[in-house]
Amino acid sequence: MTDDLYALQRRLAEFAAARDWQPYHTPKNLAAALSVEASELLEVFQWLTPEESARVMEDADLAGRVEDEVADVLAYLLQFCGVLGVDPLRALAAKIGRNEQRFPRPHPQG
Amino acid sequence: MTDDLYALQRRLAEFAAARDWQPYHTPKNLAAALSVEASELLEVFQWLTPEESARVMEDADLAGRVEDEVADVLAYLLQFCGVLGVDPLRALAAKIGRNEQRFPRPHPQG
Amino acid sequence: MTDDLYALQRRLAEFAAARDWQPYHTPKNLAAALSVEASELLEVFQWLTPEESARVMEDADLAGRVEDEVADVLAYLLQFCGVLGVDPLRALAAKIGRNEQRFPRPHPQG
Amino acid sequence: MTDDLYALQRRLAEFAAARDWQPYHTPKNLAAALSVEASELLEVFQWLTPEESARVMEDADLAGRVEDEVADVLAYLLQFCGVLGVDPLRALAAKIGRNEQRFPRPHPQG
Repeated sequence: MTDDLYALQRRLAEFAAARDWQPYHTPKNLAAALSVEASELLEVFQWLTPEESARVMEDADLAGRVEDEVADVLAYLLQFCGVLGVDPLRALAAKIGRNEQRFPRPHPQG
Repeated sequence: MTDDLYALQRRLAEFAAARDWQPYHTPKNLAAALSVEASELLEVFQWLTPEESARVMEDADLAGRVEDEVADVLAYLLQFCGVLGVDPLRALAAKIGRNEQRFPRPHPQG
Repeated sequence: MTDDLYALQRRLAEFAAARDWQPYHTPKNLAAALSVEASELLEVFQWLTPEESARVMEDADLAGRVEDEVADVLAYLLQFCGVLGVDPLRALAAKIGRNEQRFPRPHPQG
Repeated sequence: MTDDLYALQRRLAEFAAARDWQPYHTPKNLAAALSVEASELLEVFQWLTPEESARVMEDADLAGRVEDEVADVLAYLLQFCGVLGVDPLRALAAKIGRNEQRFPRPHPQG
């Protein structure tokens, strides 16, 4: 299945290896590239009002840019995690668990 | 299963809804938060040499910071995609397909 | 006079030299640090409405954070320019001149 | 003199006012734009080794991109400071003073 996170991570690693890009893919460079792509996503929104930002997918050009930058952010995050052996889903599951402790629900269910 | 991307995305949405955080979670604000977290990940590496950056997981403190920031980046990416109805895995699969066209393998297999 | 841009740039260079920080101050590292500090400034604003963001200096704590991050951004910009021999005021004056050509006034004065 | 920081800041404010851009120039939007431009500067360096990054001005194309992004970063910093009434030189002078207390010289002169 093409839509599995780890399968996509393997395709990205094979893609980079086939083009001899690994020397460039240090953790530092990939962290820089990730932050550059996250800023390119922010750039789409920088002059929009909050209301305009909520309707961004109604504009085909903006929607395409958003999807493209989301893909780039996820691609560099997966490549970063790949070179360092970090499991992003496990890291997030652990963080959500910690946050559920730190920020208890304000209105417990009766 | 806790390690499924879409299950984590639903947990994040429920977490925010239970705390009435949705008014803050405009696409613009989430894109800003995503870029801030990506910069916090870069901050771990900013003064390291390429070689030091490759060994960052050998230091327990740095490893913990890296995992924490990876979780934050992924959390905001999933929340951003959630409010806009973007599927991050589908977006990445489409992008990898386009890149395989744009950057053909330099050494085709015989 | 302490408030001259080039004098501040020289103080920053002397400060770094006195602490043997020059090996860390590659253009790449300083560009990363500049982007990290710019994100820390953005962090102050990430959950604020446009209206709240306009009143940020009325809150002493937020005002202090803003001034501190402005100082950090300018410090890394000046150090970056220093190591590469770029004059930031000259670069900006040239850019403004180009922009005045690119974006002519919409309503010329009669 | 065109190369005075405050004179450039006034030219930028007049430029924005003449084009009715002030509604877009909230502190939040300008902080976002500043961080986006700082990332564009980092993008020039993201795949370079430390040694390559030190020679970036020897390449006319890269040198032009660096000067252009430096100008953009400074432009948004000055506009941000302008709308909030922050004096960037004063903020930096204060910060350097605090840092000279926090990080004393390691080898006092005899």
